[in-house]
Amino acid sequence: MKLISTILNLNRLNWETGKYTYILTCIILTGCISCKNYEVEKEEKVTPTVVIHGGAGTIKRENFTPELEIKYTAKLKEALDESYSILEKGGTSIEAIIKAIQILEESPLFNAGKGAVFTHEGKNELDASIMNGSNGMAGAVAGVSTIKSPIEAAYKVMIKSSHVLLTGKGAEKFAEQNGLDIVNTDYFYTEKRYQQLLKIKQEEKIESDHSEKASLSLVHVKKSIFGTVGAVALDKHGNLAAGTSTGGMTNKRYGRIGDSPIIGAGTYADNKTCAVSATGHGEFFIRNVVAYDIAARMKYQQKDLKTAANEVIQELKAKEGFGGVICLDKDGNVAMPFNTEGMYRGYIKNTGGANVQLFGTYVTTNNIKNNRE
Amino acid sequence: MKLISTILNLNRLNWETGKYTYILTCIILTGCISCKNYEVEKEEKVTPTVVIHGGAGTIKRENFTPELEIKYTAKLKEALDESYSILEKGGTSIEAIIKAIQILEESPLFNAGKGAVFTHEGKNELDASIMNGSNGMAGAVAGVSTIKSPIEAAYKVMIKSSHVLLTGKGAEKFAEQNGLDIVNTDYFYTEKRYQQLLKIKQEEKIESDHSEKASLSLVHVKKSIFGTVGAVALDKHGNLAAGTSTGGMTNKRYGRIGDSPIIGAGTYADNKTCAVSATGHGEFFIRNVVAYDIAARMKYQQKDLKTAANEVIQELKAKEGFGGVICLDKDGNVAMPFNTEGMYRGYIKNTGGANVQLFGTYVTTNNIKNNRE
Repeated sequence: MKLISTILNLNRLNWETGKYTYILTCIILTGCISCKNYEVEKEEKVTPTVVIHGGAGTIKRENFTPELEIKYTAKLKEALDESYSILEKGGTSIEAIIKAIQILEESPLFNAGKGAVFTHEGKNELDASIMNGSNGMAGAVAGVSTIKSPIEAAYKVMIKSSHVLLTGKGAEKFAEQNGLDIVNTDYFYTEKRYQQLLKIKQEEKIESDHSEKASLSLVHVKKSIFGTVGAVALDKHGNLAAGTSTGGMTNKRYGRIGDSPIIGAGTYADNKTCAVSATGHGEFFIRNVVAYDIAARMKYQQKDLKTAANEVIQELKAKEGFGGVICLDKDGNVAMPFNTEGMYRGYIKNTGGANVQLFGTYVTTNNIKNNRE
Repeated sequence: MKLISTILNLNRLNWETGKYTYILTCIILTGCISCKNYEVEKEEKVTPTVVIHGGAGTIKRENFTPELEIKYTAKLKEALDESYSILEKGGTSIEAIIKAIQILEESPLFNAGKGAVFTHEGKNELDASIMNGSNGMAGAVAGVSTIKSPIEAAYKVMIKSSHVLLTGKGAEKFAEQNGLDIVNTDYFYTEKRYQQLLKIKQEEKIESDHSEKASLSLVHVKKSIFGTVGAVALDKHGNLAAGTSTGGMTNKRYGRIGDSPIIGAGTYADNKTCAVSATGHGEFFIRNVVAYDIAARMKYQQKDLKTAANEVIQELKAKEGFGGVICLDKDGNVAMPFNTEGMYRGYIKNTGGANVQLFGTYVTTNNIKNNRE
């Protein structure tokens, strides 16, 4: 108000006395207008986006009844809607991905949380990780059996400890000390997953009878069912985040850990490049540092998100590394390449509802150039 | 002999009868000579090299008695000599790094194998990983307490299982089934490391009394002692390999796992770029995917080994991520940058004995352009 009255009253003052005040006021006001424009521009530029997956593999229409397809689609849509509503209200990308992943963890349809597959010993051992693209912080848990929401535990590791990766009983103790829901191991039991274990063990036994080394070979990997859930999001503040949660590999043994809790392999996020969550044959994703490799191609080769992600998934296929990734860059571009017969996946950009897909081929599903395509 | 006699006797034969034999012989001999030249050229080009580290940190001359300096230097030299003699005899880079790492694991001087630091609960939990640059295969174990040589266990995981990372009791069972030396947990006990734990716990208690969140904060990290051993090698066949082994972080809890067993973070090898083994504050090395990032800068930005490695270690320092790496490329170039006050390190290229260093600064120690500099 004082500034305005100074301007209005300027003509009443001697020019020599007031000219400096006048010039200074003009500079300040111009500055304020520029700042305001810049802020509006920044808000408008950021398109809140969330992308999720529920695992990749032999997901073919002929294996699904219409009812089952509706069930999967509805659950993925619910996760996207709830997650997006957080972003819409100005929530953070971290909050949004935790919400999406928890909905999938709580559903027995997916191999994460409730619905996790069984180890060789008939246990459920869960892994999860999370990364904040705005500050490079990360958290993860591996081989946990009593934490209801592994993704929440990964989040607590990130914000409440000085560590990145906690495992087994130690991770469970940490979760308990941090007030997370601890459940009886029965919580993760589902009849469907247990039957899968029995079937695989039976097949493995038959093959083992014919090969001494079978239990140490690829036999139990080939006979296994993979699955993971994951989410990546971009919030109104322009921050990216990524998270992944899994029950691992059916019939896994020897305390095997896959790529899901490994930063750089199964999960990666950096505001300067992209956020990535992976699903597939974990060993290949670890050895090829898949999630970070996509970011590295963007950072060092100036490749766009789609090109970088497609290249990595194509190269994996050439090595017989099967699976897929969901990726999101700072401009809200989405890529969801996979080299399997299907991937449970979906995204929401702006308003207009969730875009969910289960089947399809690599070529047709990764070309998401425009919103709601 | 038959070929030569054919040539010598050619003038005695009818030209029409012998000309095809003559032409064929010439082609075969030319081919043999070319192959021989190629092999010699390839053998000559490859300079077998081994590089090792025994951890980075506050390693300053004023903290060492002359006797202690001699002890460390001698053990590093022994590891280099034994490892190099494998390469000289035509052994593989994998064999060479396992030998070097096992010598350091068996020495109580370094935080790996015997000499490992203690967890908060007074246990020794060891981690290790290995990667073969010629085929991208890798193996790792984490949180193991009864395997005498964790690097050998990592190697067995790589060659005998379809997995990359095995943990805890499961990994121990796997090691036992594969005939590895299993030891009583007392094997890893050293009085020096146990006293370090007691001292740190006492300091932590004093600080905890003044801060409710101390046990979950950086307090016990700042008071911890880091250490790792590692090796990278290039064999006569032109193959790179990398391996890392550690006792983790003194006073670690909650089943914490650092970067040493994580492919891409603590260990990475690819014949097309380089082999890397890292040591330092593991959480920073995981979040920044340090080992693979060096390879990525070479692959995607065509940077030389030294530039790529220096950049990564400098950027880590800016984020307060302390530690170092040893790196080796396919042409036998060596880089050993670190951002701490010292790093136990050394290398052998060609013959001429081991080059071992303990102290020094980042600037002066990473400029290894020529052999035996």
